[in-house]
Amino acid sequence: MCVVPDKLLRMELAGSSTSRPVMLAIAGDSAAGKTTLTQGLVDALGADRITSLCVDDYHRYDRQERKGYPFTALHPDCNYLQIMEQHLQLLATGQPVLKPVYDHDTGQLTRPVLIEPTEFVIVEGLLPLHTRLAQACFDITVYLDPPEHIRRDWKVKRDTSKRGYTPAQVLAELDKREPESEEFIRPQRSAADIVVRFGPIEGRQDPPDTPLSAELTLRPTIRHPDLSGVFRESDRRAMHLKLKRDEDGRPVEGLHVHGYVPREESRLLEKAIWAELDTESELPVTLGHIGDGTRSEPLAITQLLLLYHMLDSVR
Amino acid sequence: MCVVPDKLLRMELAGSSTSRPVMLAIAGDSAAGKTTLTQGLVDALGADRITSLCVDDYHRYDRQERKGYPFTALHPDCNYLQIMEQHLQLLATGQPVLKPVYDHDTGQLTRPVLIEPTEFVIVEGLLPLHTRLAQACFDITVYLDPPEHIRRDWKVKRDTSKRGYTPAQVLAELDKREPESEEFIRPQRSAADIVVRFGPIEGRQDPPDTPLSAELTLRPTIRHPDLSGVFRESDRRAMHLKLKRDEDGRPVEGLHVHGYVPREESRLLEKAIWAELDTESELPVTLGHIGDGTRSEPLAITQLLLLYHMLDSVR
Repeated sequence: MCVVPDKLLRMELAGSSTSRPVMLAIAGDSAAGKTTLTQGLVDALGADRITSLCVDDYHRYDRQERKGYPFTALHPDCNYLQIMEQHLQLLATGQPVLKPVYDHDTGQLTRPVLIEPTEFVIVEGLLPLHTRLAQACFDITVYLDPPEHIRRDWKVKRDTSKRGYTPAQVLAELDKREPESEEFIRPQRSAADIVVRFGPIEGRQDPPDTPLSAELTLRPTIRHPDLSGVFRESDRRAMHLKLKRDEDGRPVEGLHVHGYVPREESRLLEKAIWAELDTESELPVTLGHIGDGTRSEPLAITQLLLLYHMLDSVR
Repeated sequence: MCVVPDKLLRMELAGSSTSRPVMLAIAGDSAAGKTTLTQGLVDALGADRITSLCVDDYHRYDRQERKGYPFTALHPDCNYLQIMEQHLQLLATGQPVLKPVYDHDTGQLTRPVLIEPTEFVIVEGLLPLHTRLAQACFDITVYLDPPEHIRRDWKVKRDTSKRGYTPAQVLAELDKREPESEEFIRPQRSAADIVVRFGPIEGRQDPPDTPLSAELTLRPTIRHPDLSGVFRESDRRAMHLKLKRDEDGRPVEGLHVHGYVPREESRLLEKAIWAELDTESELPVTLGHIGDGTRSEPLAITQLLLLYHMLDSVR
């Protein structure tokens, strides 16, 4: 093979002075809440400062073609992961990409779109943290880890209302995907700086319409805001911050925000997170919106924490 | 903006050991003969060693959208040239790209395709040499420069037989495109190592079915094979190699191969080119095929010269 011309190397180096966006990954299984989490961040920062994209668009086969293969859309072989890595590298170094597009309505791959990185880039999807190179492209990594029964409920609701499936079809698809969820999706949990689990409080028999709580696992792989002031007093029953060991034994902090937390109490935590940023801008009020139009305090705090990390990365 | 993580830089550097293909650009206006020239090279080297792509696929707008704009498909603003440059850089450094696809039949942009560089990559199209960065990605650059009346004939023939237009439509489109041909396409001529002009011999009144001659302008920007042995004798009337000045005054060699050159004479030139390679492989016999199934000696020699340069680049 030939030697690359010096002139080309020179131009490559010239490109390295491009300004680089802050990159946030939100990984998780289908219907784990990625879009809801992302949307609040986009609303808070505004579309001129933040760009979001979904890496499920990097499907290698369309829905019809997948029928001829022994794997589901979750399998790495079913995706152009090398191109996904390449595009993440390009975005992380401030360069535009022509991103493929998968149409969830028709199941077809269609015309690609230009993505130009802004100050912040959110990358959500099934496999954004599958490889080490992909992981290396992010400043902050999140894994969404709801209990499986909650995620199944969400997926049935969404795929029947928005994607035209019957409940039986969705449940059959979930069962078919389970081995690949286990093999490829859930291992990404260990690559995340923050693991987010929205769900009912374990061990309690709350009625079904109780707002979901958030259990945030904060790994010391990034520097989290100092929240000791909020939790110094021992009477905060609806929020806790505890030192603990993660599933794999690694030391982490566990931040719990219960679904029934009083607004004035969660407000204290929000102010503490925001104060750590030392910014003059106002605390955003658009956070915590869930699909049905109500506000979730645990979601708002989760989004605020991610916002903290994004804004902290540009300082 | 944030500092790129060291881990990402490390991985970027790791990628630089990828083997790099030899990159050949064939630029020229619509129907200038790019595909015919390319096909002979692909046939000679075989699809496992050579990859060809057309950068007209980087159209920013589809045919319908273009109707709302004051420019034609030839205009740089009508193309994702920055993405084209990026993909050329990636290919030149041995990396795959997910290339957009423009469907000439429907005028629509469709599902992109994976291009993985092989030992040789040919990039043909309207604007592959439009920018300095794009030029820097190539080892060998060619500009196809037939006389306008020949190109117009070719375009009418192709677009009426293969793309469903009437002659009047094609001629109207040519007139509409002329200002952009002048402003954006033809300036690429000066960036080419080799300018190829297939056409009738100037100043002669040959009958219309006389095979076209080739006039090759060989710039000293790359090292051409030493052909002095072939042209030492002065009696070669159907082939000439002359030192001359190009349109812009720069010194070049002009290689003329007349359409009526006897096979035994052109064979001498072919052998001389091939001998310079010092290779044990046989001189390819598949060169020179034109659309109507006949063989053109001037085309065969042009292709052989390009083949020489490609193979010479890997030595």
